[in-house]
Amino acid sequence: MTLTEARAELKARQARMAAYEHAMGLIYYDGATGAPKGTADNRAQSLAVLSEESYKLATGDETVELLEYLDANKDELDESERRQVYLLLKDVRSMRKIPMDEFVAYQRLLAEADAVWHEAKEKSDFPLFEPLLKQIFDTNIRFAGYIEPSKKPYDYWLGEYEDGLTMETCDKFFAALRERLVPLIERAVAAPPVDESVINGCFPTAKQEELSVWLMKTMGLDLDHVGLATTEHPFTTSLGSHFDERITTHYHEEDFSMSMFSVIHEGGHALYDTGSADELAYTVLDGGVSMGVHESQSRFYENILGRSRAFCALAFPKLVELFPQLGKYTAEDFYRAVNRVRPSLIRTEADEVTYCLHVMIRYELERRVMAGELDVHDLPGEWNRLYKEYLGVDVPDDRNGVLQDSHWSGGSIGYFPSYALGSAYGAQFLAKMRETVDVDACLSRGDFAPINEWNRENIWKYGSLYAPDKLLERVLGAPFDPKYYLDYLEAKVRDVYGV
Amino acid sequence: MTLTEARAELKARQARMAAYEHAMGLIYYDGATGAPKGTADNRAQSLAVLSEESYKLATGDETVELLEYLDANKDELDESERRQVYLLLKDVRSMRKIPMDEFVAYQRLLAEADAVWHEAKEKSDFPLFEPLLKQIFDTNIRFAGYIEPSKKPYDYWLGEYEDGLTMETCDKFFAALRERLVPLIERAVAAPPVDESVINGCFPTAKQEELSVWLMKTMGLDLDHVGLATTEHPFTTSLGSHFDERITTHYHEEDFSMSMFSVIHEGGHALYDTGSADELAYTVLDGGVSMGVHESQSRFYENILGRSRAFCALAFPKLVELFPQLGKYTAEDFYRAVNRVRPSLIRTEADEVTYCLHVMIRYELERRVMAGELDVHDLPGEWNRLYKEYLGVDVPDDRNGVLQDSHWSGGSIGYFPSYALGSAYGAQFLAKMRETVDVDACLSRGDFAPINEWNRENIWKYGSLYAPDKLLERVLGAPFDPKYYLDYLEAKVRDVYGV
Repeated sequence: MTLTEARAELKARQARMAAYEHAMGLIYYDGATGAPKGTADNRAQSLAVLSEESYKLATGDETVELLEYLDANKDELDESERRQVYLLLKDVRSMRKIPMDEFVAYQRLLAEADAVWHEAKEKSDFPLFEPLLKQIFDTNIRFAGYIEPSKKPYDYWLGEYEDGLTMETCDKFFAALRERLVPLIERAVAAPPVDESVINGCFPTAKQEELSVWLMKTMGLDLDHVGLATTEHPFTTSLGSHFDERITTHYHEEDFSMSMFSVIHEGGHALYDTGSADELAYTVLDGGVSMGVHESQSRFYENILGRSRAFCALAFPKLVELFPQLGKYTAEDFYRAVNRVRPSLIRTEADEVTYCLHVMIRYELERRVMAGELDVHDLPGEWNRLYKEYLGVDVPDDRNGVLQDSHWSGGSIGYFPSYALGSAYGAQFLAKMRETVDVDACLSRGDFAPINEWNRENIWKYGSLYAPDKLLERVLGAPFDPKYYLDYLEAKVRDVYGV
Repeated sequence: MTLTEARAELKARQARMAAYEHAMGLIYYDGATGAPKGTADNRAQSLAVLSEESYKLATGDETVELLEYLDANKDELDESERRQVYLLLKDVRSMRKIPMDEFVAYQRLLAEADAVWHEAKEKSDFPLFEPLLKQIFDTNIRFAGYIEPSKKPYDYWLGEYEDGLTMETCDKFFAALRERLVPLIERAVAAPPVDESVINGCFPTAKQEELSVWLMKTMGLDLDHVGLATTEHPFTTSLGSHFDERITTHYHEEDFSMSMFSVIHEGGHALYDTGSADELAYTVLDGGVSMGVHESQSRFYENILGRSRAFCALAFPKLVELFPQLGKYTAEDFYRAVNRVRPSLIRTEADEVTYCLHVMIRYELERRVMAGELDVHDLPGEWNRLYKEYLGVDVPDDRNGVLQDSHWSGGSIGYFPSYALGSAYGAQFLAKMRETVDVDACLSRGDFAPINEWNRENIWKYGSLYAPDKLLERVLGAPFDPKYYLDYLEAKVRDVYGV
C-alpha cells in the first residue's frame, strides 16, 4: 500500500464509520422522539448488530494495520490527518482491550437500561433500575481496568469526557467553586425573593413551538441543517456529519422558560457541531472536541447570553407577542425571574448559581461508587442526604432525586463534571471575546453574527483538531482559571439581588 | 458446519440483515418526515455505505455457501426455513449478477433522484428530473438483463413486485377491467353529480390528527407498535421487524377525507405487516409477501371497509364531534361524497371506480419505455394524451401529471399494476370472508376484531411463507377472478348513482 492509497483509505474508513454512527444515532434519536413506545426491544436488537459491525470496522486488523502504517509515516501527513490517526489509534487500542462479546453485551445492557430507567423514573421505583445501574457501574469499572489498568477507573472515565481531567483536578476545581459559591448562595437566599410570576402560567405548546423556531433563527442556527423535535430529556445529536444536526426539547405548559432555555442550550451544542469546517465532515474530527468544551458552548448560549439583561430585553417583545398575558410585565421582570437563585431538586431546572452544586453531588457519588466505597443500593439515601446538606432541600421521591438524569442509564459516568467545567470555560471565553466584540450591543440588536463568528474562528471550526487543553490555551492565551466564572456569578447575583 | 449450526447461522444472518434494513429504512423514513430539508446529501452518503455493507452481507461467499448447504439439505428443514432459504438464494443469485459498483451507484442514483424529483415536482419541471429518470429506467432494464436475460425486462420487474406476474397476465387483467369499467364510468359521469360539500371546508390539522388516532385505534392497530408521522407522500414501513411499524399521512386542511382515507390505507398495510406471526420476526418471511397482496389489504381497509355505508355511519358522529360544521349533514351525505365517481388528475386522490384507469396509464407507459418503444423524454406528452383519452381530463402541468408519483424516482418500475391487482384480490377476499363473518354488522358496531381475525388467520400471520399465488389459492379455494371486483364496483355505483 502506498502512502497515497493509505491516506485515501483513512478517509474512506472514517466515512464508513460515520455511516454506522448515523444509523445508530438515528435509531437512538428516533427512540427518544417519535418511536411508538413498545419498540425498545426491537431497537436494542438492531443496535446490538450495528454496534458489533461498527466495532469490527473500527478495531479490525486491517484498520489497525492501516493506522499503524500511517502513524509510522506521520511526518508526511497533514495536521488534520495526524490528529485523525492519533485519535483513531487511541480509540482502537482502547477498544481492542475490551472483548467483543462484552462490548456487545454492554450495548444491549444500555438499551435495556434506557427503557427500564424510563419506567423506574415514571414509577419513582429505584429498586427496579438498581440491578441494571449496578451492572453499568461494574462494567465501566471493568472496562477502565481493561483499557488503562494503571489509572483509577474514575480517572479513566473523567478523561474520556474531558481529555486529561482527573479526580485531583476536579477536587481542586470544585473546592474553588464551593469556597465562593456557598456564601454567595447563602446571601442570595437570605435576600428578598425575586417575583417569578412572569414565567408561570399557561403557555400553549403550539406557541412555545413558535418561540423555539424564533430562538433557533435568532441565535443563528441554519434550519436547513438543524432540526427540532420533542422528547422527554432534551439532547442534541449529529447524524452522520455536522450537515445534519438535531436538537430536542420538552414543553411544560406551566412554564415556558424551561423549554426556552433548553432550546438555547441545545442550540449552543448545535452551533458548535455545525460550525466544524466542512472538510472535517465524515472524519473523527467532525464536531466538538470534548464534553467540557461542548458544555462551554451550550451553557454560554443558555446562560451567559440567554439570561443576560440584553437578551432578555430583546426576547421580551416576542414573548409578549406569543403570550399576551405577559403584557403586564417588563423585560426587567423577566430578566430577574430567569436569574432567580433558589436551591431546588432538579439539575436541569436549577438556576445558574446553584447548578454547580447539583453537579458536585453527582461527582461525589460517582467517585465513591467507582472507588467501591459506596454501593449502588445506597445511592438514593446518599443522594438525598447530600441534597439536604449542600442545597438544603428535602428530596420527596427518587423520581425527583437519584432517578432524574438519563446519564447513568446511558453509561455516561464521569460526564457530569463537564457541565461545571464547561460553564467555567464559558465565562473565561466571554472575558476574551469582550476584548474584540461588544457582546451586549450585539445582543441588544439581536445580531448574533459577531459572537458566532468569534466562536467559529476560535473554537468551532477546529472540530476535534486540537485537544481541549491545547484549544483553551490557543483561545485564551492563559491557563484556565475558575475565577472568571465565580466573578461572573457574583456579579450576576449582585445585579439581581443587590448582595 | 453441522446442520444445527447452519440453521442457527441462517437465523443470525437474517437478524443482521434486518438491522441493516432497520437502519436504511429509518434513514429513509426520517428523510421523508422530520429531517431538515438540506440534509439529503448527507443521507445519501450514509445510505451508500450501508447498502454496500448490506449487499456484502447478503451476497458474500459465506452466505452463499451457507444457503447452498442448507438448500442441499432442505428435506431436513422446517417449512419456514425452506422458504427462507429459497427466497434468500433467489435474491442472492439475482444480486450477485449485478456488479457491486453498479448496485452502489444505483443506490446513490435513487437518493439523488428522490431529492431532484421533489424539486422538479415543486417547480413542475420535468426536464430537471428527466436525465435521472432515464438513468433509472436504463439501469432497471440493464439489471433485469443481468438477472434474467431470458425474460423481457418489464416481465422481470413485474414479477419482482408480484411473483409470477407478466405482461400477458396484466394485459388480460386490464382488458377485463376496461371492458366493464369504461361503460360504468360513463354511466356514473352522465348521472346527476353527488354533492361533495360535506368533505370540503376548513379542517384544522390538529383535529385531523385526532381523527387519525381514532381511526388507527378503531381499525385495531396497536399504537405501542405502530407510529404515525406526517410526510409529503404517505407510505408505510417496517423498521427492523413487524414490532416497529410506521405509517405516514399528509393533511389537507381543505378536505379531511384525503388524510382520513390515506390513514386507513396505510393502516391496512400496517395491519398486514404487524400481523406476521412473531416467530417470523428478523427473517425474510416477516411482513407481507408481495405488493399485490399488500395493496389488497390496504385498499380493502381504505375502500371496501372504509368507504362502506356501515363504516361511514360509524365514523360520522366522530367527524361531527371533531368538525362541528358537519352537523348539518348526514352520514349518508358523507357516504355518497366519498364514493363519488369523477375522473381526475391525481391517482392517490382518485375515486375507487376511476382508480384503475390511472394505474392502467402508468402500466402502459412503463411497458413501452421498458421495451424501448417510448423515450423517457416523451413521457409527459404521452401521459397527457392518455389522461385525455382514458379519463377525459386535460393535464395542466407536469406536477399534476407525470411528476405526481414518487415510485419512479424510487426505482419502483412495475409496481403500479399491484394496486389494481390488489384491489381486485380484496374484493374476492371479501366474498370469501362474508361466508363466515358478518362484515357490515362488525363495521356498524365498530368492531374490527372478527374482520382482522379472519385476515390474520388467512393472510397476515403467514408473512411471506407462501408465494402470492399459493396464498390466494389457500384463502380463496378458487382461482383469482377480477369479476368479483367488477361486480363490487358496479354494485357501488348502482347504490350511489342508481345507474
